Amino acid sequence: MQLIDGKKISQQLKEEIAAQVETMIAAGRRRPHLAAVLVGHDGGSETYVANKVKACEACGFTSTLIRREADVTEDELLSIVHSLNNDPEVDGFIVQLPLPKHISEQKVIEAIDYRKDVDGFHPINVGRQSIGLPCFHSATPAGILELLARYEIPTKGKHCVVLGRSNIVGKPVATLMMQKGYPGNATVTVCHSATPNIKEICRSADIIIAALGQPGFVTADMVKDGATIIDVGTTRVPDASKKSGFRLCGDVDFENVAPKCAYITPVPGGVGPMTIASLMKNTLLAADGNLFND
Amino acid sequence: MQLIDGKKISQQLKEEIAAQVETMIAAGRRRPHLAAVLVGHDGGSETYVANKVKACEACGFTSTLIRREADVTEDELLSIVHSLNNDPEVDGFIVQLPLPKHISEQKVIEAIDYRKDVDGFHPINVGRQSIGLPCFHSATPAGILELLARYEIPTKGKHCVVLGRSNIVGKPVATLMMQKGYPGNATVTVCHSATPNIKEICRSADIIIAALGQPGFVTADMVKDGATIIDVGTTRVPDASKKSGFRLCGDVDFENVAPKCAYITPVPGGVGPMTIASLMKNTLLAADGNLFND
Repeated sequence: MQLIDGKKISQQLKEEIAAQVETMIAAGRRRPHLAAVLVGHDGGSETYVANKVKACEACGFTSTLIRREADVTEDELLSIVHSLNNDPEVDGFIVQLPLPKHISEQKVIEAIDYRKDVDGFHPINVGRQSIGLPCFHSATPAGILELLARYEIPTKGKHCVVLGRSNIVGKPVATLMMQKGYPGNATVTVCHSATPNIKEICRSADIIIAALGQPGFVTADMVKDGATIIDVGTTRVPDASKKSGFRLCGDVDFENVAPKCAYITPVPGGVGPMTIASLMKNTLLAADGNLFND
Repeated sequence: MQLIDGKKISQQLKEEIAAQVETMIAAGRRRPHLAAVLVGHDGGSETYVANKVKACEACGFTSTLIRREADVTEDELLSIVHSLNNDPEVDGFIVQLPLPKHISEQKVIEAIDYRKDVDGFHPINVGRQSIGLPCFHSATPAGILELLARYEIPTKGKHCVVLGRSNIVGKPVATLMMQKGYPGNATVTVCHSATPNIKEICRSADIIIAALGQPGFVTADMVKDGATIIDVGTTRVPDASKKSGFRLCGDVDFENVAPKCAYITPVPGGVGPMTIASLMKNTLLAADGNLFND
Protein backbone atom coordinates (compact mmCIF):
# COMPACT_ATOMS: atom_id res chain seq x y z
CA MET A 1 0.00 0.00 0.00
CA GLN A 2 1.31 3.42 -0.94
CA LEU A 3 0.05 6.55 0.75
CA ILE A 4 -0.79 9.38 -1.66
CA ASP A 5 0.83 12.37 -0.01
CA GLY A 6 -1.30 15.35 -1.00
CA LYS A 7 0.59 17.62 1.33
CA LYS A 8 3.89 16.85 -0.37
CA ILE A 9 2.50 17.08 -3.91
CA SER A 10 0.71 20.35 -3.16
CA GLN A 11 3.98 21.70 -1.78
CA GLN A 12 5.74 20.71 -5.03
CA LEU A 13 2.98 22.32 -7.07
CA LYS A 14 3.23 25.56 -5.12
CA GLU A 15 7.00 25.59 -5.62
CA GLU A 16 6.53 25.09 -9.37
CA ILE A 17 4.02 27.94 -9.41
CA ALA A 18 6.35 30.17 -7.39
CA ALA A 19 9.11 29.54 -9.94
CA GLN A 20 6.77 30.55 -12.77
CA VAL A 21 5.83 33.69 -10.86
CA GLU A 22 9.51 34.60 -10.57
CA THR A 23 9.80 34.21 -14.35
CA MET A 24 6.81 36.54 -14.78
CA ILE A 25 8.35 39.11 -12.44
CA ALA A 26 11.68 38.87 -14.29
CA ALA A 27 9.75 39.57 -17.51
CA GLY A 28 8.43 42.77 -15.98
CA ARG A 29 4.94 41.55 -15.14
CA ARG A 30 3.21 42.00 -11.82
CA ARG A 31 2.46 39.19 -9.35
CA PRO A 32 -0.75 37.18 -9.81
CA HIS A 33 -3.44 38.54 -7.50
CA LEU A 34 -6.13 36.42 -5.85
CA ALA A 35 -8.92 38.03 -3.85
CA ALA A 36 -11.15 36.12 -1.44
CA VAL A 37 -14.47 37.28 -0.06
CA LEU A 38 -15.38 35.83 3.33
CA VAL A 39 -18.83 36.40 4.81
CA GLY A 40 -19.40 35.72 8.53
CA HIS A 41 -17.26 33.58 10.81
CA ASP A 42 -17.95 29.92 9.95
CA GLY A 43 -15.09 27.88 11.44
CA GLY A 44 -14.46 25.80 8.31
CA SER A 45 -14.56 28.83 6.04
CA GLU A 46 -12.14 30.76 8.27
CA THR A 47 -9.67 27.88 8.08
CA TYR A 48 -10.02 27.42 4.31
CA VAL A 49 -9.58 31.12 3.58
CA ALA A 50 -6.60 31.39 5.94
CA ASN A 51 -5.01 28.44 4.13
CA LYS A 52 -5.66 30.06 0.77
CA VAL A 53 -4.03 33.31 1.88
CA LYS A 54 -1.04 31.30 3.16
CA ALA A 55 -0.82 29.41 -0.15
CA CYS A 56 -0.79 32.74 -2.02
CA GLU A 57 2.25 33.76 0.01
CA ALA A 58 3.98 30.47 -0.78
CA CYS A 59 3.33 31.01 -4.49
CA GLY A 60 4.45 34.62 -4.52
CA PHE A 61 0.93 35.91 -5.26
CA THR A 62 -0.63 39.08 -3.99
CA SER A 63 -3.75 38.28 -1.98
CA THR A 64 -6.60 40.40 -0.72
CA LEU A 65 -9.12 39.29 1.88
CA ILE A 66 -12.44 41.09 1.87
CA ARG A 67 -14.53 40.38 4.99
CA ARG A 68 -18.16 41.13 5.61
CA GLU A 69 -20.36 40.23 8.56
CA ALA A 70 -23.06 37.55 8.17
CA ASP A 71 -25.75 40.22 7.86
CA VAL A 72 -24.32 41.63 4.60
CA THR A 73 -27.09 42.01 2.03
CA GLU A 74 -27.13 40.15 -1.28
CA ASP A 75 -26.92 43.48 -3.09
CA GLU A 76 -23.83 44.54 -1.15
CA LEU A 77 -22.17 41.22 -1.89
CA LEU A 78 -23.07 41.46 -5.58
CA SER A 79 -21.61 44.94 -5.75
CA ILE A 80 -18.35 43.61 -4.26
CA VAL A 81 -18.37 40.92 -6.97
CA HIS A 82 -18.90 43.55 -9.66
CA SER A 83 -16.08 45.72 -8.44
CA LEU A 84 -13.73 42.70 -8.37
CA ASN A 85 -14.87 41.82 -11.90
CA ASN A 86 -13.90 45.29 -13.03
CA ASP A 87 -10.67 45.63 -11.06
CA PRO A 88 -7.78 45.17 -13.53
CA GLU A 89 -5.43 44.54 -10.60
CA VAL A 90 -7.34 41.39 -9.55
CA ASP A 91 -6.73 38.30 -11.71
CA GLY A 92 -9.10 35.93 -9.98
CA PHE A 93 -11.29 35.75 -6.92
CA ILE A 94 -13.44 33.44 -4.90
CA VAL A 95 -16.45 33.97 -2.70
CA GLN A 96 -16.04 31.42 0.09
CA LEU A 97 -19.07 29.13 0.43
CA PRO A 98 -21.38 28.49 2.22
CA LEU A 99 -23.07 31.90 2.33
CA PRO A 100 -25.76 32.92 4.83
CA LYS A 101 -29.22 31.63 3.88
CA HIS A 102 -30.59 35.04 2.84
CA ILE A 103 -28.09 35.19 -0.03
CA SER A 104 -28.47 33.14 -3.21
CA GLU A 105 -25.16 31.33 -3.73
CA GLN A 106 -26.07 30.61 -7.33
CA LYS A 107 -26.76 34.28 -8.05
CA VAL A 108 -23.40 35.22 -6.58
CA ILE A 109 -21.56 32.52 -8.54
CA GLU A 110 -23.20 33.62 -11.79
CA ALA A 111 -22.32 37.26 -11.11
CA ILE A 112 -18.60 36.42 -11.14
CA ASP A 113 -16.89 37.10 -14.47
CA TYR A 114 -16.09 33.59 -15.69
CA ARG A 115 -12.60 34.80 -16.67
CA LYS A 116 -11.91 35.46 -12.98
CA ASP A 117 -13.84 32.44 -11.64
CA VAL A 118 -10.83 30.51 -10.32
CA ASP A 119 -13.11 28.17 -8.32
CA GLY A 120 -14.53 26.97 -11.67
CA PHE A 121 -18.13 27.11 -10.39
CA HIS A 122 -19.58 29.47 -13.04
CA PRO A 123 -21.87 27.70 -15.56
CA ILE A 124 -19.57 28.73 -18.43
CA ASN A 125 -16.60 26.98 -16.80
CA VAL A 126 -18.74 23.96 -15.87
CA GLY A 127 -20.01 23.73 -19.46
CA ARG A 128 -16.59 24.24 -21.03
CA GLN A 129 -15.14 21.57 -18.74
CA SER A 130 -17.87 19.15 -19.80
CA ILE A 131 -17.30 19.87 -23.50
CA GLY A 132 -13.52 19.60 -23.05
CA LEU A 133 -12.66 23.25 -23.81
CA PRO A 134 -9.99 25.29 -22.00
CA CYS A 135 -11.45 26.59 -18.73
CA PHE A 136 -10.93 26.86 -15.00
CA HIS A 137 -11.39 23.29 -13.83
CA SER A 138 -13.11 23.08 -10.49
CA ALA A 139 -10.40 22.90 -7.89
CA THR A 140 -11.10 19.62 -6.06
CA PRO A 141 -11.58 17.49 -9.21
CA ALA A 142 -8.47 19.04 -10.74
CA GLY A 143 -6.51 18.29 -7.57
CA ILE A 144 -7.64 14.65 -7.67
CA LEU A 145 -6.50 14.26 -11.28
CA GLU A 146 -3.18 15.85 -10.42
CA LEU A 147 -2.63 13.28 -7.66
CA LEU A 148 -3.42 10.40 -10.03
CA ALA A 149 -0.99 11.87 -12.57
CA ARG A 150 1.87 12.53 -10.13
CA TYR A 151 1.65 8.95 -8.81
CA GLU A 152 1.31 7.65 -12.40
CA ILE A 153 -1.77 5.64 -11.46
CA PRO A 154 -3.24 3.96 -14.57
CA THR A 155 -6.75 5.17 -15.43
CA LYS A 156 -7.37 4.13 -19.06
CA GLY A 157 -10.08 1.47 -19.23
CA LYS A 158 -10.18 1.26 -15.43
CA HIS A 159 -13.48 1.24 -13.59
CA CYS A 160 -13.73 4.48 -11.63
CA VAL A 161 -16.61 4.62 -9.14
CA VAL A 162 -17.57 8.09 -7.96
CA LEU A 163 -19.60 8.23 -4.75
CA GLY A 164 -21.67 11.42 -4.74
CA ARG A 165 -23.14 13.64 -7.44
CA SER A 166 -22.46 17.13 -6.11
CA ASN A 167 -21.85 20.03 -8.47
CA ILE A 168 -18.44 20.75 -7.01
CA VAL A 169 -16.97 17.23 -6.82
CA GLY A 170 -19.01 14.23 -7.99
CA LYS A 171 -20.32 15.43 -11.35
CA PRO A 172 -17.19 17.31 -12.52
CA VAL A 173 -14.74 14.59 -11.44
CA ALA A 174 -16.88 12.01 -13.27
CA THR A 175 -16.75 14.15 -16.40
CA LEU A 176 -12.98 14.55 -16.19
CA MET A 177 -12.33 10.86 -15.51
CA MET A 178 -14.27 9.79 -18.62
CA GLN A 179 -12.66 12.26 -21.00
CA LYS A 180 -10.01 11.23 -23.49
CA GLY A 181 -6.42 11.61 -22.34
CA TYR A 182 -4.58 10.95 -19.11
CA PRO A 183 -5.71 10.97 -16.37
CA GLY A 184 -9.05 9.94 -17.82
CA ASN A 185 -10.35 7.42 -20.33
CA ALA A 186 -11.86 5.52 -17.41
CA THR A 187 -15.21 3.75 -17.40
CA VAL A 188 -17.06 5.89 -14.86
CA THR A 189 -19.96 4.95 -12.60
CA VAL A 190 -21.62 7.60 -10.44
CA CYS A 191 -23.38 6.30 -7.31
CA HIS A 192 -25.43 8.38 -4.88
CA SER A 193 -28.15 8.27 -2.23
CA ALA A 194 -30.59 6.54 -4.61
CA THR A 195 -28.16 3.73 -5.52
CA PRO A 196 -29.32 0.52 -3.83
CA ASN A 197 -26.19 -1.60 -4.33
CA ILE A 198 -23.26 0.73 -3.66
CA LYS A 199 -21.24 -1.99 -1.88
CA GLU A 200 -21.43 -4.33 -4.84
CA ILE A 201 -20.55 -1.60 -7.33
CA CYS A 202 -17.58 -0.45 -5.24
CA ARG A 203 -16.23 -4.00 -5.16
CA SER A 204 -15.80 -3.84 -8.95
CA ALA A 205 -13.93 -0.52 -8.82
CA ASP A 206 -10.28 -0.05 -9.69
CA ILE A 207 -10.53 3.54 -8.43
CA ILE A 208 -13.03 4.83 -5.85
CA ILE A 209 -13.51 8.58 -5.45
CA ALA A 210 -15.56 9.03 -2.28
CA ALA A 211 -17.30 12.40 -1.98
CA LEU A 212 -20.42 11.73 0.07
CA GLY A 213 -19.55 13.53 3.30
CA GLN A 214 -20.37 10.41 5.35
CA PRO A 215 -17.52 9.54 7.75
CA GLY A 216 -16.26 5.98 7.36
CA PHE A 217 -18.82 5.09 4.66
CA VAL A 218 -16.34 3.05 2.56
CA THR A 219 -15.51 -0.08 4.52
CA ALA A 220 -12.97 -2.82 3.79
CA ASP A 221 -15.61 -5.24 2.44
CA MET A 222 -16.41 -2.71 -0.33
CA VAL A 223 -12.87 -2.54 -1.66
CA LYS A 224 -11.18 -4.85 -4.13
CA ASP A 225 -7.55 -5.80 -3.45
CA GLY A 226 -5.22 -3.40 -5.20
CA ALA A 227 -7.75 -0.61 -5.68
CA THR A 228 -6.91 3.11 -5.53
CA ILE A 229 -8.95 5.10 -3.02
CA ILE A 230 -9.38 8.87 -3.19
CA ASP A 231 -11.10 10.22 -0.10
CA VAL A 232 -12.71 13.63 -0.57
CA GLY A 233 -14.66 13.62 2.70
CA THR A 234 -13.76 16.22 5.32
CA THR A 235 -16.45 16.03 7.96
CA ARG A 236 -15.73 17.70 11.30
CA VAL A 237 -16.43 15.16 14.04
CA PRO A 238 -16.43 16.34 17.69
CA ASP A 239 -13.30 15.12 19.50
CA ALA A 240 -12.62 16.31 23.03
CA SER A 241 -9.00 15.13 22.84
CA LYS A 242 -8.22 17.75 20.19
CA LYS A 243 -7.42 21.35 20.98
CA SER A 244 -9.88 22.47 18.30
CA GLY A 245 -12.57 20.20 19.74
CA PHE A 246 -12.98 18.22 16.51
CA ARG A 247 -11.12 16.02 14.08
CA LEU A 248 -11.49 15.81 10.28
CA CYS A 249 -13.02 12.52 9.13
CA GLY A 250 -12.89 11.17 5.61
CA ASP A 251 -15.53 9.04 3.88
CA VAL A 252 -13.24 6.00 4.11
CA ASP A 253 -12.58 3.69 7.07
CA PHE A 254 -8.88 4.31 6.50
CA GLU A 255 -7.52 1.91 9.12
CA ASN A 256 -9.20 -1.16 7.65
CA VAL A 257 -9.31 -0.14 4.00
CA ALA A 258 -5.69 0.99 3.61
CA PRO A 259 -4.08 -2.49 3.89
CA LYS A 260 -6.10 -3.68 0.85
CA CYS A 261 -5.24 -0.74 -1.43
CA ALA A 262 -2.55 -0.09 -3.97
CA TYR A 263 -2.88 3.65 -3.26
CA ILE A 264 -4.93 5.65 -0.78
CA THR A 265 -5.23 9.31 0.25
CA PRO A 266 -5.28 10.16 3.95
CA VAL A 267 -7.61 12.69 5.60
CA PRO A 268 -6.26 15.21 6.34
CA GLY A 269 -3.26 15.60 4.03
CA GLY A 270 -4.72 14.04 0.86
CA VAL A 271 -7.20 15.83 -1.39
CA GLY A 272 -7.61 18.90 0.85
CA PRO A 273 -4.22 20.54 0.20
CA MET A 274 -4.56 19.69 -3.51
CA THR A 275 -7.78 21.70 -3.75
CA ILE A 276 -5.92 24.79 -2.61
CA ALA A 277 -2.97 24.06 -4.91
CA SER A 278 -5.42 23.80 -7.86
CA LEU A 279 -6.87 27.15 -6.92
CA MET A 280 -3.34 28.60 -7.07
CA LYS A 281 -2.82 27.01 -10.48
CA ASN A 282 -6.07 28.54 -11.73
CA THR A 283 -4.99 31.94 -10.41
CA LEU A 284 -1.70 31.64 -12.27
CA LEU A 285 -3.65 30.78 -15.44
CA ALA A 286 -5.91 33.78 -14.85
CA ALA A 287 -2.91 36.07 -14.48
CA ASP A 288 -1.36 34.59 -17.60
CA GLY A 289 -4.53 35.67 -19.38
CA ASN A 290 -4.48 33.30 -22.35
CA LEU A 291 -6.90 30.61 -21.19
CA PHE A 292 -9.92 31.84 -23.10
CA ASN A 293 -8.08 33.22 -26.14
CA ASP A 294 -8.41 30.22 -28.45
CA MET B 1 -41.64 -6.64 -25.08
CA GLN B 2 -43.13 -3.22 -25.64
CA LEU B 3 -41.98 -1.04 -28.52
CA ILE B 4 -41.33 2.59 -27.53
CA ASP B 5 -43.10 4.51 -30.26
CA GLY B 6 -41.13 7.72 -30.65
CA LYS B 7 -43.09 8.70 -33.70
CA LYS B 8 -46.39 8.56 -31.81
CA ILE B 9 -45.04 10.34 -28.70
CA SER B 10 -43.40 13.06 -30.78
CA GLN B 11 -46.72 13.53 -32.57
CA GLN B 12 -48.46 13.94 -29.20
CA LEU B 13 -45.81 16.38 -28.06
CA LYS B 14 -46.20 18.47 -31.19
CA GLU B 15 -49.97 18.53 -30.72
CA GLU B 16 -49.53 19.67 -27.13
CA ILE B 17 -47.17 22.40 -28.30
CA ALA B 18 -49.59 23.45 -31.07
CA ALA B 19 -52.34 23.81 -28.47
CA GLN B 20 -50.09 26.04 -26.35
CA VAL B 21 -49.27 28.13 -29.41
CA GLU B 22 -52.98 28.66 -30.04
CA THR B 23 -53.32 29.88 -26.44
CA MET B 24 -50.45 32.31 -27.05
CA ILE B 25 -52.09 33.58 -30.25
CA ALA B 26 -55.42 33.98 -28.45
CA ALA B 27 -53.58 36.05 -25.84
CA GLY B 28 -52.39 38.38 -28.60
CA ARG B 29 -48.83 37.08 -28.85
CA ARG B 30 -47.07 36.18 -32.07
CA ARG B 31 -46.14 32.63 -33.13
CA PRO B 32 -42.84 31.16 -31.89
CA HIS B 33 -40.21 31.57 -34.58
CA LEU B 34 -37.40 29.08 -35.22
CA ALA B 35 -34.67 29.84 -37.74
CA ALA B 36 -32.31 27.21 -39.14
CA VAL B 37 -29.03 27.84 -40.91
CA LEU B 38 -28.02 25.15 -43.38
CA VAL B 39 -24.57 25.21 -45.00
CA GLY B 40 -23.93 23.07 -48.07
CA HIS B 41 -25.92 20.05 -49.23
CA ASP B 42 -25.07 17.14 -46.90
CA GLY B 43 -27.80 14.52 -47.37
CA GLY B 44 -28.39 13.90 -43.67
CA SER B 45 -28.45 17.61 -42.88
CA GLU B 46 -30.93 18.31 -45.69
CA THR B 47 -33.27 15.66 -44.27
CA TYR B 48 -32.94 16.84 -40.67
CA VAL B 49 -33.56 20.47 -41.56
CA ALA B 50 -36.53 19.58 -43.78
CA ASN B 51 -38.00 17.60 -40.88
CA LYS B 52 -37.46 20.51 -38.52
CA VAL B 53 -39.24 22.90 -40.88
CA LYS B 54 -42.12 20.40 -41.16
CA ALA B 55 -42.28 20.06 -37.37
CA CYS B 56 -42.50 23.87 -37.09
CA GLU B 57 -45.56 23.79 -39.33
CA ALA B 58 -47.14 21.05 -37.21
CA CYS B 59 -46.55 23.13 -34.07
CA GLY B 60 -47.86 26.37 -35.56
CA PHE B 61 -44.42 28.00 -35.47
CA THR B 62 -42.99 30.43 -37.96
CA SER B 63 -39.83 29.01 -39.49
CA THR B 64 -37.05 30.55 -41.54
CA LEU B 65 -34.46 28.57 -43.45
CA ILE B 66 -31.21 30.38 -44.25
CA ARG B 67 -29.06 28.54 -46.78
CA ARG B 68 -25.46 29.12 -47.70
CA GLU B 69 -23.17 27.16 -50.00
CA ALA B 70 -20.36 25.05 -48.54
CA ASP B 71 -17.81 27.74 -49.41
CA VAL B 72 -19.34 30.31 -47.06
CA THR B 73 -16.61 31.88 -44.90
CA GLU B 74 -16.55 31.58 -41.13
CA ASP B 75 -16.95 35.36 -40.90
CA GLU B 76 -20.05 35.34 -43.07
CA LEU B 77 -21.56 32.56 -40.97
CA LEU B 78 -20.71 34.38 -37.74
CA SER B 79 -22.35 37.53 -39.05
CA ILE B 80 -25.53 35.53 -39.79
CA VAL B 81 -25.41 34.25 -36.21
CA HIS B 82 -25.03 37.78 -34.88
CA SER B 83 -27.95 39.09 -36.88
CA LEU B 84 -30.14 36.22 -35.65
CA ASN B 85 -29.01 36.96 -32.08
CA ASN B 86 -30.17 40.55 -32.54
CA ASP B 87 -33.40 39.85 -34.43
CA PRO B 88 -36.27 40.31 -31.96
CA GLU B 89 -38.57 38.39 -34.34
CA VAL B 90 -36.49 35.19 -33.97
CA ASP B 91 -36.96 33.28 -30.70
CA GLY B 92 -34.47 30.53 -31.29
CA PHE B 93 -32.22 29.20 -34.01
CA ILE B 94 -29.94 26.36 -34.89
CA VAL B 95 -26.92 26.06 -37.13
CA GLN B 96 -27.15 22.56 -38.58
CA LEU B 97 -24.03 20.49 -37.94
CA PRO B 98 -21.67 19.27 -39.33
CA LEU B 99 -20.14 22.40 -40.87
CA PRO B 100 -17.47 22.40 -43.60
CA LYS B 101 -13.98 21.81 -42.22
CA HIS B 102 -12.78 25.40 -42.75
CA ILE B 103 -15.33 26.62 -40.18
CA SER B 104 -14.89 26.12 -36.43
CA GLU B 105 -18.11 24.54 -35.16
CA GLN B 106 -17.21 25.46 -31.59
CA LYS B 107 -16.69 29.11 -32.52
CA VAL B 108 -20.09 29.19 -34.22
CA ILE B 109 -21.82 27.48 -31.29
CA GLU B 110 -20.27 29.92 -28.82
CA ALA B 111 -21.32 32.88 -30.96
CA ILE B 112 -24.99 31.94 -30.53
CA ASP B 113 -26.78 33.88 -27.79
CA TYR B 114 -27.43 31.17 -25.19
CA ARG B 115 -30.98 32.51 -24.76
CA LYS B 116 -31.66 31.51 -28.39
CA ASP B 117 -29.57 28.32 -28.35
CA VAL B 118 -32.46 25.85 -28.70
CA ASP B 119 -30.05 23.01 -29.56
CA GLY B 120 -28.61 23.41 -26.05
CA PHE B 121 -25.00 23.19 -27.29
CA HIS B 122 -23.70 26.51 -25.89
CA PRO B 123 -21.35 26.09 -22.89
CA ILE B 124 -23.73 28.12 -20.71
CA ASN B 125 -26.58 25.70 -21.41
CA VAL B 126 -24.29 22.68 -21.01
CA GLY B 127 -23.06 24.04 -17.66
CA ARG B 128 -26.51 25.01 -16.42
CA GLN B 129 -27.81 21.55 -17.35
CA SER B 130 -24.97 19.94 -15.40
CA ILE B 131 -25.62 22.12 -12.34
CA GLY B 132 -29.37 21.50 -12.60
CA LEU B 133 -30.43 25.07 -13.43
CA PRO B 134 -33.17 26.02 -15.91
CA CYS B 135 -31.73 25.90 -19.45
CA PHE B 136 -32.23 24.55 -22.93
CA HIS B 137 -31.58 20.84 -22.49
CA SER B 138 -29.82 19.32 -25.45
CA ALA B 139 -32.48 17.92 -27.70
CA THR B 140 -31.59 14.23 -27.97
CA PRO B 141 -31.05 13.65 -24.22
CA ALA B 142 -34.26 15.55 -23.45
CA GLY B 143 -36.13 13.43 -26.00
CA ILE B 144 -34.82 10.24 -24.38
CA LEU B 145 -35.98 11.35 -20.92
CA GLU B 146 -39.37 12.28 -22.35
CA LEU B 147 -39.76 8.75 -23.76
CA LEU B 148 -38.86 7.18 -20.40
CA ALA B 149 -41.39 9.45 -18.68
CA ARG B 150 -44.24 8.86 -21.15
CA TYR B 151 -43.81 5.09 -20.83
CA GLU B 152 -43.47 5.45 -17.04
CA ILE B 153 -40.29 3.39 -17.05
CA PRO B 154 -38.76 3.24 -13.55
CA THR B 155 -35.32 4.89 -13.33
CA LYS B 156 -34.70 5.50 -9.61
CA GLY B 157 -31.85 3.31 -8.37
CA LYS B 158 -31.70 1.50 -11.71
CA HIS B 159 -28.37 0.90 -13.41
CA CYS B 160 -28.26 3.01 -16.56
CA VAL B 161 -25.37 2.22 -18.90
CA VAL B 162 -24.58 4.92 -21.45
CA LEU B 163 -22.52 3.80 -24.44
CA GLY B 164 -20.61 6.77 -25.85
CA ARG B 165 -19.28 10.00 -24.32
CA SER B 166 -20.13 12.56 -27.00
CA ASN B 167 -20.92 16.15 -26.07
CA ILE B 168 -24.35 16.02 -27.67
CA VAL B 169 -25.63 12.68 -26.34
CA GLY B 170 -23.45 10.56 -24.04
CA LYS B 171 -22.24 13.13 -21.52
CA PRO B 172 -25.46 15.17 -21.21
CA VAL B 173 -27.77 12.13 -21.01
CA ALA B 174 -25.52 10.67 -18.29
CA THR B 175 -25.79 13.93 -16.35
CA LEU B 176 -29.58 14.01 -16.67
CA MET B 177 -30.04 10.36 -15.71
CA MET B 178 -28.09 10.79 -12.47
CA GLN B 179 -29.85 13.96 -11.33
CA LYS B 180 -32.48 13.96 -8.61
CA GLY B 181 -36.07 13.62 -9.79
CA TYR B 182 -37.81 11.56 -12.41
CA PRO B 183 -36.66 10.47 -14.91
CA GLY B 184 -33.30 10.34 -13.20
CA ASN B 185 -31.91 9.18 -9.87
CA ALA B 186 -30.26 6.29 -11.73
CA THR B 187 -26.83 4.85 -11.03
CA VAL B 188 -25.07 5.81 -14.25
CA THR B 189 -22.09 4.15 -15.94
CA VAL B 190 -20.53 5.72 -19.04
CA CYS B 191 -18.68 3.31 -21.35
CA HIS B 192 -16.69 4.28 -24.44
CA SER B 193 -13.98 3.18 -26.83
CA ALA B 194 -11.46 2.73 -23.98
CA THR B 195 -13.75 0.45 -21.94
CA PRO B 196 -12.39 -3.10 -22.14
CA ASN B 197 -15.44 -4.97 -20.75
CA ILE B 198 -18.48 -3.30 -22.29
CA LYS B 199 -20.34 -6.59 -22.74
CA GLU B 200 -20.06 -7.47 -19.08
CA ILE B 201 -21.11 -3.97 -17.95
CA CYS B 202 -24.10 -3.96 -20.29
CA ARG B 203 -25.28 -7.27 -18.85
CA SER B 204 -25.75 -5.54 -15.47
CA ALA B 205 -27.80 -2.70 -16.99
CA ASP B 206 -31.48 -2.08 -16.36
CA ILE B 207 -31.39 0.64 -19.01
CA ILE B 208 -28.94 0.85 -21.92
CA ILE B 209 -28.63 4.10 -23.87
CA ALA B 210 -26.58 3.28 -26.96
CA ALA B 211 -25.00 6.28 -28.69
CA LEU B 212 -21.83 4.97 -30.31
CA GLY B 213 -22.77 5.18 -33.97
CA GLN B 214 -21.75 1.54 -34.54
CA PRO B 215 -24.52 -0.40 -36.29
CA GLY B 216 -25.60 -3.52 -34.43
CA PHE B 217 -23.05 -3.07 -31.62
CA VAL B 218 -25.43 -4.14 -28.84
CA THR B 219 -26.09 -7.84 -29.28
CA ALA B 220 -28.49 -10.16 -27.44
CA ASP B 221 -25.76 -11.63 -25.23
CA MET B 222 -25.11 -8.14 -23.80
CA VAL B 223 -28.67 -7.60 -22.63
CA LYS B 224 -30.27 -8.75 -19.38
CA ASP B 225 -33.84 -10.07 -19.57
CA GLY B 226 -36.32 -7.28 -18.98
CA ALA B 227 -33.93 -4.41 -19.74
CA THR B 228 -34.95 -1.16 -21.42
CA ILE B 229 -32.99 -0.31 -24.56
CA ILE B 230 -32.76 3.20 -25.99
CA ASP B 231 -31.06 3.20 -29.39
CA VAL B 232 -29.63 6.58 -30.42
CA GLY B 233 -27.65 5.27 -33.40
CA THR B 234 -28.65 6.48 -36.87
CA THR B 235 -25.91 5.33 -39.21
CA ARG B 236 -26.67 5.39 -42.96
CA VAL B 237 -25.81 1.97 -44.36
CA PRO B 238 -25.82 1.49 -48.16
CA ASP B 239 -28.88 -0.54 -49.26
CA ALA B 240 -29.58 -0.99 -52.97
CA SER B 241 -33.14 -2.13 -52.24
CA LYS B 242 -34.06 1.33 -50.93
CA LYS B 243 -35.05 4.22 -53.18
CA SER B 244 -32.66 6.48 -51.24
CA GLY B 245 -29.84 3.95 -51.63
CA PHE B 246 -29.39 3.53 -47.86
CA ARG B 247 -31.15 2.48 -44.69
CA LEU B 248 -30.83 3.90 -41.17
CA CYS B 249 -29.16 1.49 -38.76
CA GLY B 250 -29.25 1.73 -34.99
CA ASP B 251 -26.52 0.69 -32.55
CA VAL B 252 -28.65 -2.28 -31.47
CA ASP B 253 -29.16 -5.65 -33.15
CA PHE B 254 -32.89 -5.04 -32.85
CA GLU B 255 -34.11 -8.38 -34.21
CA ASN B 256 -32.30 -10.47 -31.61
CA VAL B 257 -32.28 -7.99 -28.71
CA ALA B 258 -35.96 -6.98 -28.82
CA PRO B 259 -37.38 -10.32 -27.57
CA LYS B 260 -35.36 -10.03 -24.35
CA CYS B 261 -36.38 -6.46 -23.51
CA ALA B 262 -39.13 -4.93 -21.45
CA TYR B 263 -38.97 -1.82 -23.67
CA ILE B 264 -36.99 -0.95 -26.78
CA THR B 265 -36.86 1.95 -29.26
CA PRO B 266 -36.82 1.13 -32.98
CA VAL B 267 -34.59 2.87 -35.55
CA PRO B 268 -36.06 4.78 -37.30
CA GLY B 269 -39.10 5.93 -35.33
CA GLY B 270 -37.60 5.93 -31.82
CA VAL B 271 -35.26 8.62 -30.56
CA GLY B 272 -34.98 10.48 -33.89
CA PRO B 273 -38.45 12.07 -33.95
CA MET B 274 -38.11 12.89 -30.24
CA THR B 275 -34.99 14.95 -30.90
CA ILE B 276 -36.99 17.18 -33.22
CA ALA B 277 -39.93 17.35 -30.81
CA SER B 278 -37.52 18.47 -28.04
CA LEU B 279 -36.22 21.18 -30.33
CA MET B 280 -39.80 22.39 -30.78
CA LYS B 281 -40.30 22.36 -27.01
CA ASN B 282 -37.13 24.43 -26.55
CA THR B 283 -38.36 26.90 -29.17
CA LEU B 284 -41.67 27.25 -27.33
CA LEU B 285 -39.72 27.91 -24.11
CA ALA B 286 -37.60 30.48 -25.93
CA ALA B 287 -40.71 32.26 -27.22
CA ASP B 288 -42.23 32.13 -23.75
CA GLY B 289 -39.16 34.05 -22.62
CA ASN B 290 -39.09 33.15 -18.92
CA LEU B 291 -36.54 30.34 -18.88
CA PHE B 292 -33.61 32.40 -17.68
CA ASN B 293 -35.54 34.84 -15.48
CA ASP B 294 -35.09 33.09 -12.15
